[in-house]
Amino acid sequence: MRDAPLNPAFLQACRGETPAHTPVWLMRQAGRYMAEYRALRAKHSILEMIKDPEKATTVTLQPVNAFPVDAAIIFADILTLLEPMGLNLEFISGKGPVFHNPIRDPADIRALKAIDAGRELNFTLDAIRLSREKLANRIPLIGFSGAPYTLACYAIEGAGSKDFDNVRAWMFAHPQAWADLMDRLTDAVTDYLLAQIQAGAQAVQLFDSWAGSLSLADYRRFAAPWSRRIFDTLAREAPDVPRIHFSANGGHLLEEISTFPISVLGLDWRVDAAAAVSKYGNPLAYQGNLDPARLLASDEAVREGVASVKAAFSGAQAHIFNLGHGVVKTTPPERVKLLIDQVHARD
Amino acid sequence: MRDAPLNPAFLQACRGETPAHTPVWLMRQAGRYMAEYRALRAKHSILEMIKDPEKATTVTLQPVNAFPVDAAIIFADILTLLEPMGLNLEFISGKGPVFHNPIRDPADIRALKAIDAGRELNFTLDAIRLSREKLANRIPLIGFSGAPYTLACYAIEGAGSKDFDNVRAWMFAHPQAWADLMDRLTDAVTDYLLAQIQAGAQAVQLFDSWAGSLSLADYRRFAAPWSRRIFDTLAREAPDVPRIHFSANGGHLLEEISTFPISVLGLDWRVDAAAAVSKYGNPLAYQGNLDPARLLASDEAVREGVASVKAAFSGAQAHIFNLGHGVVKTTPPERVKLLIDQVHARD
Repeated sequence: MRDAPLNPAFLQACRGETPAHTPVWLMRQAGRYMAEYRALRAKHSILEMIKDPEKATTVTLQPVNAFPVDAAIIFADILTLLEPMGLNLEFISGKGPVFHNPIRDPADIRALKAIDAGRELNFTLDAIRLSREKLANRIPLIGFSGAPYTLACYAIEGAGSKDFDNVRAWMFAHPQAWADLMDRLTDAVTDYLLAQIQAGAQAVQLFDSWAGSLSLADYRRFAAPWSRRIFDTLAREAPDVPRIHFSANGGHLLEEISTFPISVLGLDWRVDAAAAVSKYGNPLAYQGNLDPARLLASDEAVREGVASVKAAFSGAQAHIFNLGHGVVKTTPPERVKLLIDQVHARD
Repeated sequence: MRDAPLNPAFLQACRGETPAHTPVWLMRQAGRYMAEYRALRAKHSILEMIKDPEKATTVTLQPVNAFPVDAAIIFADILTLLEPMGLNLEFISGKGPVFHNPIRDPADIRALKAIDAGRELNFTLDAIRLSREKLANRIPLIGFSGAPYTLACYAIEGAGSKDFDNVRAWMFAHPQAWADLMDRLTDAVTDYLLAQIQAGAQAVQLFDSWAGSLSLADYRRFAAPWSRRIFDTLAREAPDVPRIHFSANGGHLLEEISTFPISVLGLDWRVDAAAAVSKYGNPLAYQGNLDPARLLASDEAVREGVASVKAAFSGAQAHIFNLGHGVVKTTPPERVKLLIDQVHARD
């Protein structure tokens, strides 16, 4: 290994080894539930924070300094990738991300540009370099990207949506153009993730936030081949860097996802973890999957949840504890502390 | 049978018999995608339309007159049930339903009132009676209610939400009060459905729109026992009236739902129908599950979808064709016509 962090538990589990304690990190562990984050956010827009490597590093380290997590994840956003492709992104308060020129017809896809992550997304690469420096190898740093399907959802819808019905409609109506779009997104994501690894990311996670809006048959036809291609390339180009997949609400897709060349299979909180481990087996490592709502409920709900999640994954060769979705913004930070301590205590 | 409709296909399939053609109706088949609906809606609020039996009947019959559907469903809303319990409902344009006094703490639950559907929800019962009269037994009329879990989601959140995280948090924090709330909702739903049957509903569907936000373990603990109790009572009190269950995004819960004393198991569009039929078997009849987005895409996408949905259910003893969720408001009505014709043509 090029890097041997002082706390190697996360990377050991990613590789299917048995660490001294169950490693834990949380999706969206840097965010609005922390007062430190809100203080910075009060002065800067989300994009300003992401595009300034110093600020992105500060945010990346906030949860690392507050809680004994076993991994950091770079503070970035999956949607910045679409900007250099030609889509104009804005985060509108109370509404979320909006693209002012979404893809409307197949011709719009031919106008998309190939990206050069090293130049156009260098703010995140610099943030990775700076975060690695500040982390001083205490714990590993995770890089990430959105999966092509999820990026296509935003590119076509132009904003968030409950189920992205219009996107599936577009996909059904224009299967050729859809494949072209997915090819271009896949090239961009691959370039971006390899650049993150080059910059120092010690593991990478692909987030497919909206894959769950597809049936298994449609996922196999319209999304999975492109996610698989990304992992194939990463496995070839950077075989030593663990590859994690997470799909929100994607329990019905795991039959396909579990066949990707990944190191770690992330599970949504609704997935029956014990059944998944028994069905998809090892040597996959697993990540997940506490219901984030438990952190809003009570200390007792957290304790009970940690115990049952750990029991559910007990058949897995390796388990990285995480939530089954991102930290909710109203989460009390002291519950996050309790959660991490509980995960570490029980080993 | 008290009633033998001229087109008995839907009720035959509900009973596991083999009708002369595959019956079809669509969730939210009366709604904004129809110009006739929008014309009426331009003059009246949703609650005005629901609470005036003449208007509710008009809307109920709009799709019946426009398309050769095999069943009508009464035009009503799952949330009106909560009003006589003491929650003040308003539909706010662009925002959806809002309760101005949601449940905040356990004491609020003890203040909820038991309902008398025959008196307090008589507008829907009158609409059922009037719709039956106007339908003149051409096709059967379906009544419905929200399931207790989904009603609890709105009662606690006070509005719609992406995943109702706050509701699960409340449920984890107050398990006793939650059980009390679910008991009260269950009594109300049971009373309401029995009153609908008394008024002339020839089948009833329980909609659990938000069950999919629960894991299977939490569904079994916090939701399923109450839905089961409703079906137990209906099976005892009105054994000849078919009982349909539909849960949106609930594929991971079917292992439990399929054990309810129901006649028909409705499937979300993301559920692998062939796998579900083979796993949960007969004598259950099945309902579903075309992706509603196909209706937005193209005629070809509808034809392809109808063929594959019919093939997926070919192992079921009986299949009622439906969407795997409600009709999307931007659906072209001519595609609905094409869909119904395709379902009927291929037999």
